Amino acid sequence: MNGLSRKIYLELPLPTEDDPRSDQQRILDTLAAAGMKELVHIPVHILRKLYPLLDNAKWKITVSLAWNGEKWEVVEIEEGDTTAQHYGLAVDLGSTTVVARLLDCNNGAILKEVSCFNKQIQWGTDILSRIFYCKDNKEKLEEVRRATVESICECMDKLDASHSALSMVVAGNTTMIHFLLGMDAFCVFYTPHAVHADRPGFQLARDLDIPLKGYVYCYPSKSNYLGGDIISGMIDTELYKKDEISVFFDIGTNGELVIGNKEFLLCGAGAAGPALEGGVVRTGMRADVGAVDEVKICNGNIDVHVIGNPKDKYQIMHGKKTLQDNNKDTVQNCAQNIEEYLQENAKGKIEETMEITPQGICGSGIIDLIAELFLEGWIDIRGKLSPEKSPLIQERDNQLCVEYAPGLYFYQKDIDEFIRTKSAAHTMVEIMLRESGLDLNQADRFYVAGAFGKHVSKESAITIGMYPDMDRDHIINAGNSSLEGAQKLLLNRSLLNDIDQILEEMVYIQFAEVEDFLELMVAAQALPHTDYKRYPTVMEKLKERQKGIKL
Amino acid sequence: MNGLSRKIYLELPLPTEDDPRSDQQRILDTLAAAGMKELVHIPVHILRKLYPLLDNAKWKITVSLAWNGEKWEVVEIEEGDTTAQHYGLAVDLGSTTVVARLLDCNNGAILKEVSCFNKQIQWGTDILSRIFYCKDNKEKLEEVRRATVESICECMDKLDASHSALSMVVAGNTTMIHFLLGMDAFCVFYTPHAVHADRPGFQLARDLDIPLKGYVYCYPSKSNYLGGDIISGMIDTELYKKDEISVFFDIGTNGELVIGNKEFLLCGAGAAGPALEGGVVRTGMRADVGAVDEVKICNGNIDVHVIGNPKDKYQIMHGKKTLQDNNKDTVQNCAQNIEEYLQENAKGKIEETMEITPQGICGSGIIDLIAELFLEGWIDIRGKLSPEKSPLIQERDNQLCVEYAPGLYFYQKDIDEFIRTKSAAHTMVEIMLRESGLDLNQADRFYVAGAFGKHVSKESAITIGMYPDMDRDHIINAGNSSLEGAQKLLLNRSLLNDIDQILEEMVYIQFAEVEDFLELMVAAQALPHTDYKRYPTVMEKLKERQKGIKL
Repeated sequence: MNGLSRKIYLELPLPTEDDPRSDQQRILDTLAAAGMKELVHIPVHILRKLYPLLDNAKWKITVSLAWNGEKWEVVEIEEGDTTAQHYGLAVDLGSTTVVARLLDCNNGAILKEVSCFNKQIQWGTDILSRIFYCKDNKEKLEEVRRATVESICECMDKLDASHSALSMVVAGNTTMIHFLLGMDAFCVFYTPHAVHADRPGFQLARDLDIPLKGYVYCYPSKSNYLGGDIISGMIDTELYKKDEISVFFDIGTNGELVIGNKEFLLCGAGAAGPALEGGVVRTGMRADVGAVDEVKICNGNIDVHVIGNPKDKYQIMHGKKTLQDNNKDTVQNCAQNIEEYLQENAKGKIEETMEITPQGICGSGIIDLIAELFLEGWIDIRGKLSPEKSPLIQERDNQLCVEYAPGLYFYQKDIDEFIRTKSAAHTMVEIMLRESGLDLNQADRFYVAGAFGKHVSKESAITIGMYPDMDRDHIINAGNSSLEGAQKLLLNRSLLNDIDQILEEMVYIQFAEVEDFLELMVAAQALPHTDYKRYPTVMEKLKERQKGIKL
Repeated sequence: MNGLSRKIYLELPLPTEDDPRSDQQRILDTLAAAGMKELVHIPVHILRKLYPLLDNAKWKITVSLAWNGEKWEVVEIEEGDTTAQHYGLAVDLGSTTVVARLLDCNNGAILKEVSCFNKQIQWGTDILSRIFYCKDNKEKLEEVRRATVESICECMDKLDASHSALSMVVAGNTTMIHFLLGMDAFCVFYTPHAVHADRPGFQLARDLDIPLKGYVYCYPSKSNYLGGDIISGMIDTELYKKDEISVFFDIGTNGELVIGNKEFLLCGAGAAGPALEGGVVRTGMRADVGAVDEVKICNGNIDVHVIGNPKDKYQIMHGKKTLQDNNKDTVQNCAQNIEEYLQENAKGKIEETMEITPQGICGSGIIDLIAELFLEGWIDIRGKLSPEKSPLIQERDNQLCVEYAPGLYFYQKDIDEFIRTKSAAHTMVEIMLRESGLDLNQADRFYVAGAFGKHVSKESAITIGMYPDMDRDHIINAGNSSLEGAQKLLLNRSLLNDIDQILEEMVYIQFAEVEDFLELMVAAQALPHTDYKRYPTVMEKLKERQKGIKL
């Protein structure tokens, strides 16, 4: 391991009249003899500990070192050999969820992973509310900063031994890092988008009020919308090292996109629309207990899986007939969701027989629903509902809607909103590839980061034209690549050079400045796309599901 | 100026859509464009200040930077151009007195110099008492540390604008630096003399509880007895750069000695004996108000100057006759003493007519007294009092003594003690020169540092054989070379390399291991020395004062 921290066991030669070197020099010399090549600084609080610790330890000590960007700093000194306990923390500072991992820095093993809600949520689930809450108000900014730090601390408290960890790497978007450092984040959204700090680098943990011995490294951001979480994702996926061209897509309220390989890196970001996080759809909700996260239309019925129920348990919204078979495959994706839910509610021990009733629909459910509506022909290529196709399609509040679960309706407006979102996402990828001189099908790998990549069905996302129609195995759920990249750096400080290289090579594309952006977006508003030929497998599926359909 | 701090005025280009660099990057880029070559770190507390400061300042700011050993750290950021106010502090952390200078770091001018007693004195005037007071007791050590810091803070309070200073350089002996940093200092005196830290380097001022924006640099020590004050003296006198060979001597309770030139440096230290600081002599006292600091024997009378009295005012201890003339020359040295006293007591405005009566005798007085006793023949070459020479020589408490002021007696034992001290000092110089293959008269310059060099009469010190009998102009009062060296470094950080070089080149001589040390010391116990030929000018004076003396 060549990480951001080191623990080195030293057997110091005893001071004698012939060797009256100072304790300080004795340690530094012995470190050098043990192969330490870089400069080492011993801060005063450690100098104060040397006596009587060295005597008590019979001159056998373990020195803990944290890298601060230019040199090692001794952050702890202990009696005897404690090198076996060498911990570090990787943190994904998400705007909704903070996830932290305790790493064994001797072997890279993940000792424990925990998460908690970002305590900023008290000022709004959307980032803008939070930014406006504390805009130009030092006291409120301090509240938000403290809530951010406390979110990390809550994770640390759940992780045993985390307070004895030496270093921490945090990856988060530009706003999250501004809040963590206590900086007003209005700049992120306000033109000309010159943020206050994009490369905070190594900061003393205590300066951030994080109870850690050493330094906190915050991943740098490329621009206001392309934050440290994406740079961390680059380090995780190693896109910048590969021969083949990859697309890296992080879709949430905003979509961040990187396309490239070892020779070039283009990046961009755009508002993908809150529809994906259930923010606009009338019955939309977060991927939480009670949310419909999977949808299948079968024999005219709508089967839904609800978060909180066992993975093979689903509920049926009867159309014309009764469902014959459970399709277990479609609900499998949801398993992880529930496991998390069960962990969260471990103390309560949810009764397995209890059925959670649906309360709304989350992003993955929406994508499934629209894909299924389309494949069944209940909506046309413009996404318009055809009431003649199912009794579940009704008119309410002067517009058409489909009842996807008892008393829960998905409206025409919701569909329209969502299609705008998916077309924005599609268009961003299309433009970026075009800027690289490539067609959509020339991307070799398609990484989807975050919750979207984890929970959304690849098939459904292709069906609606959100993902390109490519080899499914080349569509990769990058998982929490922000967290993974944080972990990688924690364990390998040579990646700091890679980060510099990535930032230097990355070219940021302003979508707003692309002339035909709107034109392309309109073309992408059809299902799956105006240009049907881009989606051959979707055409196959349509033919299979709607016998005799004319394409 | 190429000092430990910089203030740079920047007119930042305004952020635009074409130039949306972060504030942080904008500052770093503009600093680079202004010629900043080294790495610059912006800590989080400064990042927090960027907004709205940059806006308010209309992007015209002054950046304050402090050197931390490897890179610059931004320690302050201000609106507009404040480069004219650029301050730094040089501190001599003496065991008795702390002296601090406020420097204008733009031009090196000394804006103000102040001093105060080291608050450690409450635990004893001698260092050992202080060391034992807090030995192995964390709470008491913290008391001593705080007293040390408070002494520096008291000086800072007396210096206007000192709190806006950026950097501080402190020079002090090894014990003082241990106490400043909060380290047990018993190691300094306890064999094998492996101290806890000898190169503390740059530490954050706030980590030392010193109210300063940037860093505090503590001069490193060569060994337990050869502290940062001496290394600082090297930087001041530039002994290590010269062709000719110099002797640098700092005489106090301990004597520290460096001999060398640009090709070699030998150093050593030894107990010179507390006699020099009035610690052993029965009526000895510090060079404070009421102390006899100059002595002249004239026509059988002893004329003394007392600190606190005007420089030309003296008191006469009548022997046989009445004094005819005031010898103004001999009291001139004392002028500075009084000026200091008057400054200290400025508020009280001492009445000029009031006569301070002598309370005891300080080091410079003792050396004068012994020199005069010797030149007058009142003591012989072994320092033995001859009662037949003056009615002022009497027997009290079963030993001879001389009444140098009304009711104040200097005893045979005091003389003997002092002669041991002066012979130790002489022998140290002799051995060091011999180790360099040189005779006493081959030293080209003889620097005497500290209060001793400042107050002691060169003639008297030569007369008793403490200094070599050399060209008086080559005996140089190095003054507070510890403070001067601190100032030089503050204003020129390239001297950090010189310090490394000095520490590397210096060879420490253990006097205790020199075989014939005792033998040489015995030879040096005669006045001025057993080997009369070493002191030709003293011989001349003897002949002049004692007509017909047989040498």
